[in-house]
Amino acid sequence: MTFDLPHALAALDRTPRVLRVLLTTAPAGMIDRPYGPDTWTAREVVAHLIFGEQTDWMPRLAHILAHGESEPFGSFDRAGHKHLLTLSLDELLDSFEAHRRESLAALRACNLAAADLARTGRHPALGVVTVSQLLATWVVHDLNHIAQVCKAMAFQLREDVGPWEQYLSILAPPAPR
Amino acid sequence: MTFDLPHALAALDRTPRVLRVLLTTAPAGMIDRPYGPDTWTAREVVAHLIFGEQTDWMPRLAHILAHGESEPFGSFDRAGHKHLLTLSLDELLDSFEAHRRESLAALRACNLAAADLARTGRHPALGVVTVSQLLATWVVHDLNHIAQVCKAMAFQLREDVGPWEQYLSILAPPAPR
Repeated sequence: MTFDLPHALAALDRTPRVLRVLLTTAPAGMIDRPYGPDTWTAREVVAHLIFGEQTDWMPRLAHILAHGESEPFGSFDRAGHKHLLTLSLDELLDSFEAHRRESLAALRACNLAAADLARTGRHPALGVVTVSQLLATWVVHDLNHIAQVCKAMAFQLREDVGPWEQYLSILAPPAPR
Repeated sequence: MTFDLPHALAALDRTPRVLRVLLTTAPAGMIDRPYGPDTWTAREVVAHLIFGEQTDWMPRLAHILAHGESEPFGSFDRAGHKHLLTLSLDELLDSFEAHRRESLAALRACNLAAADLARTGRHPALGVVTVSQLLATWVVHDLNHIAQVCKAMAFQLREDVGPWEQYLSILAPPAPR
């Protein structure tokens, strides 16, 4: 599949709604427990996604459009969302939805043409990257974290499934983040 | 977390809605392609879930309640959904939602008490299992397949993310099903 901006916008628009359906009626026991040592809870994943809206995706796009490859953009702080963990799940879902809506409005306002999608910037560790790679990564990053939320929720029932555990790959020990 | 029937019912009720939000506006290129050899497409996962409603979950529960451990229930046909693949995504999502609604109405009608949740049956390969293990497995199986749908969708952008691929665990080669 070749990268397609309207498809990416649609995918990014789906994520807050997917997480709302997945999480809103789930009990605290499923959303407030991690799935192993040094893993996140489902609620913490939403906090991380908000922090990404604030500091990662659109800020990096703006940086590339302003500086090209001349100046690498800053590295992402994987613990930067910790201050958001005082918020309730509903507050986090509302905040993520609002931040995502703003991000997508700003992205649409950029009116990126094909030539813009090919523009290059510099990642602090990965080197030269393009605008379309950044946007595709945003979409895949969302899907990665929806899957991670499923894993965190499923893990809370691992002792309840009995011998079926061996058939359920989502209950396997987590890969390093 | 101890198994809780109302929580399980709520989780099972969420799944068709999660899949609808995740898939309805996605392009064919994301839902009709597998994520590696011998893997399913996102659309095929929905077909598999329908087949589970028809032949796995409630039929097995009924079998346990009728026969206990005296007679193992039948094995599940992992290719049994193939005839459903002629249906469109929308038809599959509608069908899954309808089947799941029927399953949950039937499950509620069983009025399972704590003693019923502890009743035992015999899995053809795993041996003795309980009603609550069957129901917990149903919930985890849903989450497993939502995560699999995310993986199948994300995989279609693997060539578009460029050097970010190494940071995105969802793009790692699939584990055996």
